[in-house]
Amino acid sequence: MSRQSNRTADNRRVSSELLTLTYGAFVSQLLKDYESDESVNKQLDTMGYNIGIRIVEDYLARTSVRRCGDLRETADKIVKDGFKHYLGVAPTIQGMTHNEFSLVLDSNPLTEFVELPQSHANLQFSNIICGALRGALEAVHLQIDAQFVQDTLRGDPATEIRVKFIKRIEETLPPGED
Amino acid sequence: MSRQSNRTADNRRVSSELLTLTYGAFVSQLLKDYESDESVNKQLDTMGYNIGIRIVEDYLARTSVRRCGDLRETADKIVKDGFKHYLGVAPTIQGMTHNEFSLVLDSNPLTEFVELPQSHANLQFSNIICGALRGALEAVHLQIDAQFVQDTLRGDPATEIRVKFIKRIEETLPPGED
Repeated sequence: MSRQSNRTADNRRVSSELLTLTYGAFVSQLLKDYESDESVNKQLDTMGYNIGIRIVEDYLARTSVRRCGDLRETADKIVKDGFKHYLGVAPTIQGMTHNEFSLVLDSNPLTEFVELPQSHANLQFSNIICGALRGALEAVHLQIDAQFVQDTLRGDPATEIRVKFIKRIEETLPPGED
Repeated sequence: MSRQSNRTADNRRVSSELLTLTYGAFVSQLLKDYESDESVNKQLDTMGYNIGIRIVEDYLARTSVRRCGDLRETADKIVKDGFKHYLGVAPTIQGMTHNEFSLVLDSNPLTEFVELPQSHANLQFSNIICGALRGALEAVHLQIDAQFVQDTLRGDPATEIRVKFIKRIEETLPPGED
């Protein structure tokens, strides 16, 4: 599936509930099709990765942004231009260090109405978000790791994604062009 | 996956583009996991069916609506309370007979940016919508059939879902309660 244009639908909104229901239906389907929760987590991460790359390609195509100066600025952009624009929620940035930060979500549209079945204790239901963060940041040459370290869906007091900066990816030029 | 409440997210909106990307990623995944386009069409229909039932359960829980008097009224409700509310688009009703009608979509948020790969000529990409119609109407005791008879995604001049009324489903009471 490839894309034709980023123009028309950019500011269109659909019901958050529909996204939730659609996402839930697909996760249920993956749980039927794959043997372990871990395999489903991996699939969700991969799908998110591809979505993240697409989102950033569009973002770069329609805005003239300069490279973020530091990790704090990158985190701010993720919250404002990522979460707020696409999911309609703005996580708070917490626990910022020189190479890590947390995104704490007050609410998560993907898990609204969802109850995790006990038989899927290892399912990272919203793992697509971690994948999307990984893909989005890789598209701007930052290699990161992102994991849910807490999730209210699993009974934790908060929903927290921990993002760890790994390294800057060198832009490789084709041979003969450097 | 079960639901806890329909209160909070009901009027929330998310980016239409995110729904498109998420839906596209999942359809791609199903194409990898299943052998034929027809199997994927069937899965999409089943997922849609479950979503349709959920949507109508919510709808009935939060509104006090009376039963529709005829098929025209049912079609109007599908357009206004279904498509418009959830997908942000209002198809036009065409070709109305005593037991059939068409929903013609000017735009389809699910297929924005999508190009169907030639290797999947039999894929009904948006089949989840037909399933949702089937589930939604079954939840109000109407058995119908819904099929895409045209799709701009496949090069047709319009996107048209043909809905055929099959029968009214009798509400069966448990033994001893009639």
